[in-house]
Amino acid sequence: MSEPLRYDLRLRLFRGRKSFGPGVAELLHGVEARGSIRAACRDMGMAYSKAWKILKHSEEDLGFALLQREAGGSGGGKAVLTPEGRELLNRYDTFVRKVQKEADRIYEECFSIYESGGNSE
Amino acid sequence: MSEPLRYDLRLRLFRGRKSFGPGVAELLHGVEARGSIRAACRDMGMAYSKAWKILKHSEEDLGFALLQREAGGSGGGKAVLTPEGRELLNRYDTFVRKVQKEADRIYEECFSIYESGGNSE
Repeated sequence: MSEPLRYDLRLRLFRGRKSFGPGVAELLHGVEARGSIRAACRDMGMAYSKAWKILKHSEEDLGFALLQREAGGSGGGKAVLTPEGRELLNRYDTFVRKVQKEADRIYEECFSIYESGGNSE
Repeated sequence: MSEPLRYDLRLRLFRGRKSFGPGVAELLHGVEARGSIRAACRDMGMAYSKAWKILKHSEEDLGFALLQREAGGSGGGKAVLTPEGRELLNRYDTFVRKVQKEADRIYEECFSIYESGGNSE
C-alpha cells in the first residue's frame, strides 16, 4: 500500500471499431508540430509502419482523411492535417479535457477514503 | 460513414500499474452472483487461469484481497467478496456511472455536429 490509489481515463471514438484514441491524437499533434509523420514517430518512439497502420485504420473507420500526405524522398515526405482531421482533433481534445475535469471531481468524491493520488496523466 | 460516431470510456484504478478495470469488476459481479470464480468465468467466456491471473495482479497491486476463496473440489471451490473487495467494487461502479453520465453530456456538446450514436456501452 505504499503508492497512492490513482485512476486512468481513456476515451476512444469510433464508428465500427475503436479507432481514434490517445495514440492517434498524440500522433496528429506530433505531425502538426513537426510537419511529417516520420518526425512525429521519432518523437513518440513509435515505428513508422505502426503509425501508418493506426492512421489507416482510423481513417477507414471514420470515413475521412485525417492527414494530407505529400510524396517525399528519404525523409518520408511532409504531412499536414486535413480540415476534417483538425476539427476532429480539436473536438477530441476538448472532450477529453472536460471529461477528465469531471472525472477528477468524481474520483475525489468516490475514493477520498483511500490514500489517493488522483489522476495518472 | 454509414455507422454513427460513438465513443467508449474506460476507467482503471491502480497503485503501481493499471490493475482494476471493467474486466475485474465484471468478474467480481459474476462471483457475487454465482458464488464461484469458475461459474463467473463460464458466464463471461473467460478462461479460469486468466481470471486467477487478473485477480492476483489486481490484489497484489491494490494491497488487499478482493475475494475470499474457499478450497473446493472439482468445481473450483466457492468464493465470496471480501469487505474491502465489496467496498472497492461499489465505489468503482459509482465512479464509472457518474463519469459516464457526464461524458454522455459532454460528448453531445462536442460531437453533435457528427451523425452521432452516443455511447457504446
